[in-house]
Amino acid sequence: MADDGLLVLGIDPGSRVTGFGLVREVSGCARLVEAGTISTGAEKDLGRRLGRIHAGVAELVARHGPDVAAVENVFVSRNTMSALKLGQARGAAIAAVAVAGIPVAAYEPTVVKKNLVGVGNAPKAQVAWMVAQSLGMKNPGWAEDASDALAVALCHLNQRRFDRLAGKRP
Amino acid sequence: MADDGLLVLGIDPGSRVTGFGLVREVSGCARLVEAGTISTGAEKDLGRRLGRIHAGVAELVARHGPDVAAVENVFVSRNTMSALKLGQARGAAIAAVAVAGIPVAAYEPTVVKKNLVGVGNAPKAQVAWMVAQSLGMKNPGWAEDASDALAVALCHLNQRRFDRLAGKRP
Repeated sequence: MADDGLLVLGIDPGSRVTGFGLVREVSGCARLVEAGTISTGAEKDLGRRLGRIHAGVAELVARHGPDVAAVENVFVSRNTMSALKLGQARGAAIAAVAVAGIPVAAYEPTVVKKNLVGVGNAPKAQVAWMVAQSLGMKNPGWAEDASDALAVALCHLNQRRFDRLAGKRP
Repeated sequence: MADDGLLVLGIDPGSRVTGFGLVREVSGCARLVEAGTISTGAEKDLGRRLGRIHAGVAELVARHGPDVAAVENVFVSRNTMSALKLGQARGAAIAAVAVAGIPVAAYEPTVVKKNLVGVGNAPKAQVAWMVAQSLGMKNPGWAEDASDALAVALCHLNQRRFDRLAGKRP
């Protein structure tokens, strides 16, 4: 049972909606702990928006005490203002984990997809289906952002298992 | 003395160097409290970088208890990845202020310049000179990022004075 109990907090930060998913490894299986979203709603004030994201993540960290957090590296193509806004949300969310002394693992989107469904260019729906499958849920009903957050959390658990099999981790 | 003592924390967030400047209004004059930079140095880990920025700002907030924070709205033109990185730094810094319940005022770069030197397209050196002048310093020797942070803090104090004269604030 030495490898049991690792709790991973997956985060999918967004300016309007930040998804989160907590997954614990129990006897080699991933178990859902909690999944959901933090919404900034109609709040227009920059400070209050970022404060809400940060406080939401900090609350999860304080309540669950995850061992590690996982985020996807993002590829931003649209425009620089969208990239700035997304960056601000990511900064507010990731800092909440980092200041608690929790390491943050970052994965490329293709790695997350390949890790879950075997191919790096899998469609979103297939990844969502696999996330639900991995956690033994038929109709989970969680938001897309929560599912994306769970995907990167599951990716971290899988990666850890692969690394261990490959002798890269104790 | 009812309007005395307002303490403003100016922040100029950056992925590598975040400038800060604390200015207090005393009897209608701006007085320097502290100015400096928070550096992420050679740290490559995303979480630790953002954690350092956040913790640095949180430490200033805890030590000085500013009444308000001021940041410049940024115009990002280079590329989306730079915008994302700058956004992450801004998110980590601004969230540290916001979660302490301190309001964040944001100013357009042209407003900051116009406020300090009378024209919206003033060169950087002129703004830096005026920042030093406003605080009664001849050769302050602070970093450019610290000077930029002081500029937006001073802008907030000036704006507040203008608004009061125009009857917009009590």
